[in-house]
Formats: sequence, structure tokens, C-alpha cells
Amino acid sequence: MICVLTGGTGGAKFVDGLRQAMPAEEITLIVNTGDDLLWWGLYVSPDIDSITYVLSGMLSRERGWGVKGDTFLCLQAMGQLGEPTWFHTGDRDLAMHLLRSRLLAEGKTLSEATTVVSEKLGVKARVLPMSNSRVETRVDTPIGELSFEEYFVQRWYQDPVNSVRFAGATDAEPAPGVIEAIAAADAILIAPSNPITSIGPILAVPGIREALHRAHGKIAAISPIVGNAPVAGPAGILMAAQGLPCSIAGVAQAYEDFLDILICDTRDARAAEALRKSGLRVECTQTIMRSAEDKATLAREALSFVSSASLAGDEPRPRSTAFRRLDSQP
Amino acid sequence: MICVLTGGTGGAKFVDGLRQAMPAEEITLIVNTGDDLLWWGLYVSPDIDSITYVLSGMLSRERGWGVKGDTFLCLQAMGQLGEPTWFHTGDRDLAMHLLRSRLLAEGKTLSEATTVVSEKLGVKARVLPMSNSRVETRVDTPIGELSFEEYFVQRWYQDPVNSVRFAGATDAEPAPGVIEAIAAADAILIAPSNPITSIGPILAVPGIREALHRAHGKIAAISPIVGNAPVAGPAGILMAAQGLPCSIAGVAQAYEDFLDILICDTRDARAAEALRKSGLRVECTQTIMRSAEDKATLAREALSFVSSASLAGDEPRPRSTAFRRLDSQP
Repeated sequence: MICVLTGGTGGAKFVDGLRQAMPAEEITLIVNTGDDLLWWGLYVSPDIDSITYVLSGMLSRERGWGVKGDTFLCLQAMGQLGEPTWFHTGDRDLAMHLLRSRLLAEGKTLSEATTVVSEKLGVKARVLPMSNSRVETRVDTPIGELSFEEYFVQRWYQDPVNSVRFAGATDAEPAPGVIEAIAAADAILIAPSNPITSIGPILAVPGIREALHRAHGKIAAISPIVGNAPVAGPAGILMAAQGLPCSIAGVAQAYEDFLDILICDTRDARAAEALRKSGLRVECTQTIMRSAEDKATLAREALSFVSSASLAGDEPRPRSTAFRRLDSQP
Repeated sequence: MICVLTGGTGGAKFVDGLRQAMPAEEITLIVNTGDDLLWWGLYVSPDIDSITYVLSGMLSRERGWGVKGDTFLCLQAMGQLGEPTWFHTGDRDLAMHLLRSRLLAEGKTLSEATTVVSEKLGVKARVLPMSNSRVETRVDTPIGELSFEEYFVQRWYQDPVNSVRFAGATDAEPAPGVIEAIAAADAILIAPSNPITSIGPILAVPGIREALHRAHGKIAAISPIVGNAPVAGPAGILMAAQGLPCSIAGVAQAYEDFLDILICDTRDARAAEALRKSGLRVECTQTIMRSAEDKATLAREALSFVSSASLAGDEPRPRSTAFRRLDSQP
């Protein structure tokens, strides 16, 4: 059993590779819900949507989000009604939001709604929201505090970032199955997602970070940073705002209290060498995922790294409980 | 000022003519909401939608409902998710339901939500739901009691009908402005709508029928029945179930306690002659609306009939309070 912590488009790409590299039935995904938003009165969970679309083969690979071949006529009509249109929900995509919103309105939890949707779409991997509690990623900028989607989609991450917090995290609980999946996993993979706003909210849910400290499976993270820049999106700006360098060292630092293996791009071979001196196992491979084959190859490589580390009987790295709580703000 | 009681596709067609025949600002529409339903968790008000689409020039004249040129990709996707698809909501049409549902969820009344939508779409006529209370048309059939849309759309009105009732009507109140619009109207037109399930629910709201009894404006109904058959839909079956003949006499009977003028098709000239003996003013004209011109002509004719009756200074017909309460069931 493999457990994957994931969020964002990098996470979705990696999961697209993973489903080609191993039986979907053996994958449990713990998905960021910090980006969830009420949109047109509907509950939208962008990362759960992307993962569900990837796993059902529906994801638009061109856009990296939403349903392939989708149209946007409802969006256009909402614009004519004077409603906001900056968050692009396609006509086919709306079905997901309508069904989930109805299930939630009927009293189902986000976990239960996610399971219903997964079953309807024939998804064989297990998709778990990080929490059924509302945890909201809030980005503090000079123009005020924004939700993640406001910062990222509406404003094209153009605003300087003072800090990031995860509102509601203090009182949140991991969704059913999350702690158990981490405990039972033979290996735990941190997808090449933004460490601050895709993986950060997951780690901010009380109990999840502690479960990683106790995990018996090797924990490997794929770096979303190559050289001194993120492969895509605002990870660099957000890491800087949280006091982390935008480099593989910064990624290692974000996960330092539980990470066994950092997987980085071959272009970071020199930085990897330096990082190994800290005692961290660092593996280099081709991490840029352009084609379906790139994705599958990276997933196979990641699986092989954790598996060889396990076979090598590496001593577990000491797992610190004195980690920097990037997520400690209320 | 003209006040129109309307519902269904016949009503929408007539209103399409009326907006060509007179300034929209001078029309108040009192619209049936007995067909309203929760669909995919959204509040859908089919008759308010049709009237709003007619008045904003968005109605699909081919279908007689929904938005012209609409697509149905969300519907298709909902089918793939195992959700019901018998009620056809187009992708553009969904915007209306999403906006209204959000406004209602925010605590607005149906009247307020209707006004917001009207303003957004530049509708100049005044569109009033008959009531902000939930009044549900229920059709009793051998397979059980159905909502109107289940009976009409899902099951193609194939079931024998035992009776019709308007659940919730006893406790309902007319929406703000309804009673005032009837009182202030120079003429009141009953659209060529199904008397039982389109106009019936409006008349079932306590106070509306009484307001018609007190109205100073002439009240004219356009018959939706030509010969012994409805122009479209299940009006004949439903009238029979309520003990009314399927004829212009049946229409006159449905409205006997307040009707001044019945406008029927020229093909009903003989039946009209017979009906006049009861003292009712009966006018014959071309009532079948195929083209935009047909609709405008019928509207102009109807306006001219009420206007000449007013000028003729016809004595108001005695308005009975001893009418058959087709709507008296709880």
C-alpha cells in the first residue's frame, strides 16, 4: 500500500503517472482541501476534483484542471447575469460540484461525498480529503487577506505575500482513514506539490504530521522546485514568505521532521550532493513531467527509490518533533 | 396597466405576443409556481424561468422552454454520475437556477430573487411569483401522487389522473404586489394556460381569487382549448379529472366566478354562441400561435376586446363567491 499526500496541478500530474505505474487499488491519496471554496453557492474542492478527474481519465491534460473537452456556456451565462466568472467551471465539471453540494446539503461529510463520486466514476484508488473540517488557506497580501483561489486564480498570484495561514486548522480533525492510511502504508510519497499551500494545509491538520513521525513506511518527497524556481505556480513566492529558500534545500526543510528521501531533478545534482551531507537520502531523476510517459517514469522511479531504501534497511531518520510549525497560526 | 395570470408554454407564448403588443413596463405578470422543484439540489421555477426568458428574448422558441441555442453537457455529465436527467436543464439555463438558488440560500424570498434576475436580464415587465410560500401541484394517479413535473415531464402525462391538489395552498400568502397589481389593473388577462395546473395554483393562493372578485378592471381569459382538445399538453385530462368538460364551456366554468370575457378560437364560433346565452361575453379570434406575428396579433386582439368592453361600459358581471373550489383540497 502506497499513501500519497497531494494537491495542485503538480500533484495531479504525479498521480496521473502513479496510476500507470502501479495498481490503483493499492493507492490511498490524502488530498489538500485548503483551496475549497463556495462558488456560485456550490461547494468546490479543486484538488479533490483534479485527483478524481485524473483517476477516472477525465482530466483535461491540456489545462491540467477540469474535464477534457469541456465547454463553458454556463460560465458565460453567469457572466451575463453579473455573477463572478474568474473561477472557470466547465459545463461538465459543474456536474461534480452539483452532486457534491447536494450530498453535503443532505448531511454527508466531504469524505462520504468523495467516496460516492469516486464510485460513480469508477475510481479504484482511495481518495481521502485531508479533513472533513473546513480548513481554509488564507494568503496575507498588501491588499488584504485572500483565499487561495482568489490569490492564485483570480489575481494570478501577482500580489506580494506577507504570510500564509490555515484558518480552522487548529480545530480540524483528520478525515476518517487518513491516520490509518499513513500508519499502514509501505511507503508515503509527498507529490511534487507546493509545500506551503498544497501540502502545508494537510500537515496543518492536527495529528497528520504526528502520524508521519510515527509512520513505519519510508517517506519520500518529490521536489516541485528545480534549481531556484518552481516548475509551475507560486511555490517560490510562498516558500520565501514562510522563510524557506526556493531550492531543494527549502523543500527538504519544509519536511525535515519526517522526510527520509528527497527526490529532485538531475539538474539539481550539485545541490543534492550538498544536501546529502545533512544525512538526508537525496535521489536525482528527471522530474519534469511533459508527456504521459514522463509522468509514469517519475512515478516508477519514486516507487523504486522508496523500495530500495526499504530493502537497504536504512535506519529510520530521527524524526524531530521540534519542527518549525509553519502552520501554527490560528 | 395590464395584469396577466400565466403559466406553462401557452402562457409563455402569449406573453411573447403581449410584449410586442404593448410597452413591457405596463405589464405585471403573476406567475404560477406550483411546478417549482428542487432539481440537483437547485431551486427551479419552470414558469418564472420561461416568462423571464421570453421577456429577455432568450427563450428557445423551438422548444418553448429553456434558453435558445443551449447545450446539455452538464446534463450528460450528471447522467454519467448516475443522477436523474429527465428534467432537461441546459448549460446556459443552469446559470438561472444557480443564481436563484444562491439568492434563496442567502435568505432572499422568491419575489426578491425574481426581481434580481429580472433586473440582471433587463426585463422591463414586472414578474411576480404567485406566492413566496411553497405551493406544490400534486397529481394523484394510479401509481401514486406525483409532482407536476414528474407527471408532465418525467412520465409524459401518460398516467390516468384521479385528481389534482395544491399542497401548501391553504397556508400560502400571495407574494408582495400580487393583490395590489390585480386591484390596480385596467384589465386582467388569463393567459391560454392550463386552467387546472397553470392557473389553478394561482387561484388556490388564499386572497387571489377574492382579489379578482373585487377587481375593477375587466377580466378576460384566452381559452387554451379549441374544439374539444387542448392546443398542447394535458389540460383536457386534468380538466376532466376536476369535473370540467374539455371545451370552451369548461374553461368558462373554471373561471365562472370572475370572468368577464372569454376569448376563444374562431373554430369555436358555434360553442361561443351557445355560451353567450349564459350572459358571458365571448369573443372569437385566431388563437393558435405559430409565428411571432400570430402571438402579437392574439395579444392585440385580447387587449382590444378588454378595451372595447370597458368602453362599452358593460355592467360588471355579478361575481359569485359561491364558486366551485377546485382548489379546496389541503
